[in-house]
Amino acid sequence: MSDLTRSVGIVKAQIAEFDTPLHLASAAVLPAYQLCFETYGTLNAARSNAILICHALSGHHHVAGRYAADDKAAGWWDNMVGPGKPIDTDRFFVVGLNNLGGCHGSTGPSSINPATGQPWGSSFPVVTVPDWVRSQARLADRLGIDRWAAVIGGSLGGMQALQWSIDYPERVAHALVIASAPKLSAQNIAFNDVARQAILTDPDFHGGDFYAQHAIPRRGLRLARMLGHITYLSDDGMGEKFGRMLKSGDYQFGFEVEFEIESYLRYQGDKFSDYFDANTYLLMTKALDYFDPAKDLNDDLVAALRKASARFMVASFTSDWRFSPERSREIVKALVAADKEVVYGEIESVHGHDAFLMLDEPYVKLMRAYLNRVAEEVNA
Amino acid sequence: MSDLTRSVGIVKAQIAEFDTPLHLASAAVLPAYQLCFETYGTLNAARSNAILICHALSGHHHVAGRYAADDKAAGWWDNMVGPGKPIDTDRFFVVGLNNLGGCHGSTGPSSINPATGQPWGSSFPVVTVPDWVRSQARLADRLGIDRWAAVIGGSLGGMQALQWSIDYPERVAHALVIASAPKLSAQNIAFNDVARQAILTDPDFHGGDFYAQHAIPRRGLRLARMLGHITYLSDDGMGEKFGRMLKSGDYQFGFEVEFEIESYLRYQGDKFSDYFDANTYLLMTKALDYFDPAKDLNDDLVAALRKASARFMVASFTSDWRFSPERSREIVKALVAADKEVVYGEIESVHGHDAFLMLDEPYVKLMRAYLNRVAEEVNA
Repeated sequence: MSDLTRSVGIVKAQIAEFDTPLHLASAAVLPAYQLCFETYGTLNAARSNAILICHALSGHHHVAGRYAADDKAAGWWDNMVGPGKPIDTDRFFVVGLNNLGGCHGSTGPSSINPATGQPWGSSFPVVTVPDWVRSQARLADRLGIDRWAAVIGGSLGGMQALQWSIDYPERVAHALVIASAPKLSAQNIAFNDVARQAILTDPDFHGGDFYAQHAIPRRGLRLARMLGHITYLSDDGMGEKFGRMLKSGDYQFGFEVEFEIESYLRYQGDKFSDYFDANTYLLMTKALDYFDPAKDLNDDLVAALRKASARFMVASFTSDWRFSPERSREIVKALVAADKEVVYGEIESVHGHDAFLMLDEPYVKLMRAYLNRVAEEVNA
Repeated sequence: MSDLTRSVGIVKAQIAEFDTPLHLASAAVLPAYQLCFETYGTLNAARSNAILICHALSGHHHVAGRYAADDKAAGWWDNMVGPGKPIDTDRFFVVGLNNLGGCHGSTGPSSINPATGQPWGSSFPVVTVPDWVRSQARLADRLGIDRWAAVIGGSLGGMQALQWSIDYPERVAHALVIASAPKLSAQNIAFNDVARQAILTDPDFHGGDFYAQHAIPRRGLRLARMLGHITYLSDDGMGEKFGRMLKSGDYQFGFEVEFEIESYLRYQGDKFSDYFDANTYLLMTKALDYFDPAKDLNDDLVAALRKASARFMVASFTSDWRFSPERSREIVKALVAADKEVVYGEIESVHGHDAFLMLDEPYVKLMRAYLNRVAEEVNA
């Protein structure tokens, strides 16, 4: 069995309850909340081998393994996390969690607000990347982890890794920032806003309080996800996979599914709208838009990163146009200017933004090599 | 007054009625139709100085001039068409028309179907670029134009110019194909499909027969247009113009307009949904998806273009990612391989796909130089 096929096996989600109020960037206060998380591997006696995995827009705590032997799908990063895999659970204690505002077990808009006995809905506060990091730090406290061997994330997850290194310098040995950006561009925000508008203007959204109406803004979520998928794939990758292939032999001259790419997108949109919470989608895109660690420092990213004491790995993918290599290079340049140690990999891939979830060989090699070094430090 | 400020002045749209049935690519037959058009300049005695302007997705016949002295806006290509302008109405007789299926005066889904006395709505047939070209050829007959000095178009308009050169080789002296592509990529189709799904799933769409319901699928049209605009601008151009600028000084932590780019997109979407017909939008995007002159020739674009006898100008814009320069180069390479004469300009511009409507200096120079040559031939 190759290393990449071994699994952490059957896993179980856990819940951590927090009763200390959490003061958010918006000035709102969350009186109490719970975080849903999973762990894989064993925390060593020195408590020095813990790795935090931060998820992206639609991710969650179920990073690796399965809940039952006959589960069709494994965790979302099962190809990267497991025994003998680049994030090696034989050597690391790996923690995955669902972020605050999520819809997979952590407190979010679809949770019951104890103050009202109703789902939070539109009254759930807007959360930011720094808010998440603060809530995650409390989880680390709970688990007895003073310092992460590494905080790792792709896309929005990479932003959390970066924020960790800034907000808790003493608690992060390594930050791995993959397929990410130091802040969104106008185009990035524009795509998010179209997705949000699709949800907000869906008549079934009911201003965010659709739960009580037994409605789901499926149309809006579906469009948001279809659009998202276009930005996750590269033009070339989509061309290679779908091209102009037709479902049936020839043009149908109507508005049913006609090209294979349409079939793929509509399927992805339909599937997503069945399980993802519309309010969570809005919150996650806002967290993306707001992320800007240099904002209160006159746009000086170098000044923001100077606070960090972690060492960094930054990786980007050549065909990623959502967060292009150029955006990662901005981070690298600022890290270098701030006298931080950084390894940068710009990986040739046709898989676009999604490449951070795939196993392009140079990417796997980079992750493995970097994390080997981290493991050696931990056990030194 | 500089050449670029002179105008064709006050113009008037005309209607041409056609009673001979038009057989469409879909096998449907349009028993009769009308085309709305405008002309500028004077047809010379030899009838050799006529130029046809083909419009893109949301364009129409009102290419230049104003309908009244106090009209706020001029025709959509007024900066390029007029006395002394690159498409010089002192030398050319310029024809603009609204395509079949349109919503600006030519027969389309919002027109009354004489057979029923009701708007065509969902029963209006799907039209293709070759269908348009055939309907335009009849307009040329009506105007007594055997041969166009040039057929010119940007984007979807460029596809019509290319199709003209293939379908009526003897009737086109020059074809100017700007910011266009030989066929859509999977990504192009994907964006169109998201836009269509936004319209098709809008509860106010009523399967295309919303006119009778006194409804307009505004939500869907608005989303389609917002999305369209993202693809018309370049990432860099959007960054320069909007960046991360906020409407009010700081983050609002809500879902109202927050960034300037959101304000711009929502405004564009709102405006568009007030005047554009949803069924026309669907038809135009389908015409884009279907365009593929090499489809029935084993994908051999060279074979398709071999039929042409026109000379060509192809132009692309460096920051256009909707139809990138690479797509124009595909056309150029096929033209060269088919032994056709072609001038190609790859124009440095930050304006993205929209650049074909703007006045980047190298673009204006290229158009002027090329059309000067055409004018000299006409008057030789």
